[in-house]
Amino acid sequence: MLNFDYKNPTKILFGKGQIAALAKEIPVQAKVLMLYGGGSIKTNGVYEQVKNALKDFEVVEFGGIPANPEYDILMEALAIIKKENITYLLAVGGGSVIDGTKFLSSAALYTGEEPWDILTKPIRTEKGMPFGTVLTLPATGSEMNSGAVITRRSTQQKLGMGGPGLFPIFSVLDPQVINSIPDRQIANGITDAFTHVLEQYMTYPAKALLQDRIAESIMQTLIEIAPVILKDKSNYEAASDFMWSCTMALNGLIQKGVPTDWSVHAIGHELTALYDIDHARTLAIIAPSLYRYKFNTKKEKLAQYAERIWNIQTGSVEEKAMQAIEKTEAFFHSLNIKTKLSEYTDDYKKCAGFAAERLKSRGWIALGERKDITPDDVFKIVEMSY
Amino acid sequence: MLNFDYKNPTKILFGKGQIAALAKEIPVQAKVLMLYGGGSIKTNGVYEQVKNALKDFEVVEFGGIPANPEYDILMEALAIIKKENITYLLAVGGGSVIDGTKFLSSAALYTGEEPWDILTKPIRTEKGMPFGTVLTLPATGSEMNSGAVITRRSTQQKLGMGGPGLFPIFSVLDPQVINSIPDRQIANGITDAFTHVLEQYMTYPAKALLQDRIAESIMQTLIEIAPVILKDKSNYEAASDFMWSCTMALNGLIQKGVPTDWSVHAIGHELTALYDIDHARTLAIIAPSLYRYKFNTKKEKLAQYAERIWNIQTGSVEEKAMQAIEKTEAFFHSLNIKTKLSEYTDDYKKCAGFAAERLKSRGWIALGERKDITPDDVFKIVEMSY
Repeated sequence: MLNFDYKNPTKILFGKGQIAALAKEIPVQAKVLMLYGGGSIKTNGVYEQVKNALKDFEVVEFGGIPANPEYDILMEALAIIKKENITYLLAVGGGSVIDGTKFLSSAALYTGEEPWDILTKPIRTEKGMPFGTVLTLPATGSEMNSGAVITRRSTQQKLGMGGPGLFPIFSVLDPQVINSIPDRQIANGITDAFTHVLEQYMTYPAKALLQDRIAESIMQTLIEIAPVILKDKSNYEAASDFMWSCTMALNGLIQKGVPTDWSVHAIGHELTALYDIDHARTLAIIAPSLYRYKFNTKKEKLAQYAERIWNIQTGSVEEKAMQAIEKTEAFFHSLNIKTKLSEYTDDYKKCAGFAAERLKSRGWIALGERKDITPDDVFKIVEMSY
Repeated sequence: MLNFDYKNPTKILFGKGQIAALAKEIPVQAKVLMLYGGGSIKTNGVYEQVKNALKDFEVVEFGGIPANPEYDILMEALAIIKKENITYLLAVGGGSVIDGTKFLSSAALYTGEEPWDILTKPIRTEKGMPFGTVLTLPATGSEMNSGAVITRRSTQQKLGMGGPGLFPIFSVLDPQVINSIPDRQIANGITDAFTHVLEQYMTYPAKALLQDRIAESIMQTLIEIAPVILKDKSNYEAASDFMWSCTMALNGLIQKGVPTDWSVHAIGHELTALYDIDHARTLAIIAPSLYRYKFNTKKEKLAQYAERIWNIQTGSVEEKAMQAIEKTEAFFHSLNIKTKLSEYTDDYKKCAGFAAERLKSRGWIALGERKDITPDDVFKIVEMSY
């Protein structure tokens, strides 16, 4: 096991009816900016529950944060925070709303001139404006971690930020919200969380027995609940396991003591920036090709994953590993997630070059658990994904 | 899955050489009371490493905290805290030293007349004096939770305390310390951690799929590393998995969303109070009898445990469940832990009555995940353990 530091101070309020409990987590004198997305919370009952919980607070609202939270829109919210002397933020939404709120938490206390510098320099946030979240879409794990990804369409950039000051003070996870999520987004959430685990697992063996097993536990649970929840979104037990698995997949725990990769995400972000393909789907496009391309360095963990997750007990390490990649693709297909770029766009033929160039143009950050993936490798991996 | 609240703000510094990093976790102006036990830290190099890390702080020392931390001795340390105007506590030791430090953290800020009231009333600690820990003996999980158990020999009492103010600010887990731990204490640590998982798992099925699997991951890891670490304590990888498994077994995570029992601990504590039997060994004495006695309510989870942990795939639920209890006893025996009270003392014949009476005399707290274990049941469970 590798050395690690681990701290995660977010308080989780999990279960039926927990939205009502959020008021006791916010300081009584707070002036709250409530942030949300396209307004689905107004039709599924979450908006009313949150407003009711906040009835003793002074509340300003800011809706309309889009998927892949957009910098220019967030700057409008920042202006409101300053004008209204907001002291506490409440994100009500999925990963995009929560990530956008993390940017605002940081930007609200940022003393530099240009908040975009937080993303480009990047600046680690040691202290942000306190915020809580009410999760309405399990997927990204943002509700219990300190990272965020922000998009700026005018420059076609999608950049990450983070720091210990960006953990939510609290997050409400009420699995009942899942009943009103469209199938497409549930499939995305499962794919996103599953790939989060893969990025922290599919590297080289590091003799971190417990960490491996916890990662496998999350994948096993997602595979078990996926058909159940896609068949019946009102199944509270499956919804609970789905929601909690997404949080545990990226709350920092399973990455501790082990090498991590994250190159699937790095490459996938470029596909979203270029083609506006859903984040989760870009991961399903890139992951199988990346595992085939880096087969020699990942085959031992692929074989362990084959045995423990897919119950493939016969064959050589290589045979098991290869079958595991096929099983992973089949799992994505079972969610109605396509795994080839050409199934999403006709305009894919220059994508490999664009993706490699874009990653390079921002100052190449070595990818892969051994930092050995080059721009040329990215080109080949994306090409394999056509 | 049941509703839950979860928050654990302790920072973990895990790995080789992490003792040196503790200084940056303590406020620069702190006056530190360093607490330890019988002095083994002076022969295994930990004392020097801690003192070196603290070289820029004003430090007072208090050694001699015994196993099952004794109230009267802790009161001596409390007098020093007040006399010396201590502002920060540092526990260097195992669960007893850490638990004792938690009592002091609470008592140092307690405004009532009699600190023993914290245990008898009991008083929940919302805020304590800040403290960190350097763990030298993996077992209790106290390094990453907010509970403690304190003993008072003059009244033969062993009582629990806790509260959100009693999480360590940080805990250093350097697996290299395991190399100097006597075999007996390593076996105790494995047994203690394994039983902690059982108490949070061996109840009734609650459809918390991920929580069950994480609990199972810890048990599988402990079973896998037990023979390795008992054969070679210098095996750093096995030591790492042992240490981290003990922490994860009782840091609050796996008890969330599921029913818990804790009756093995409640009854076991009485055996320690009456006979001074090592805490972990009392758990190995009580657990098998308790599972046989409460077989009808626990058999489904026992059967799941049989299948997933002991690979028992054939037979009825009852047959699998019964075999799993036998496998558990065999596991304890493989650690050289005896599982019958008569193997520890000749004076056992009145124990069942004493244990039941003592639990009753303090105001009966219903035991078991369904609160259905009566004093008469305790009598029978202890009698089955003779």
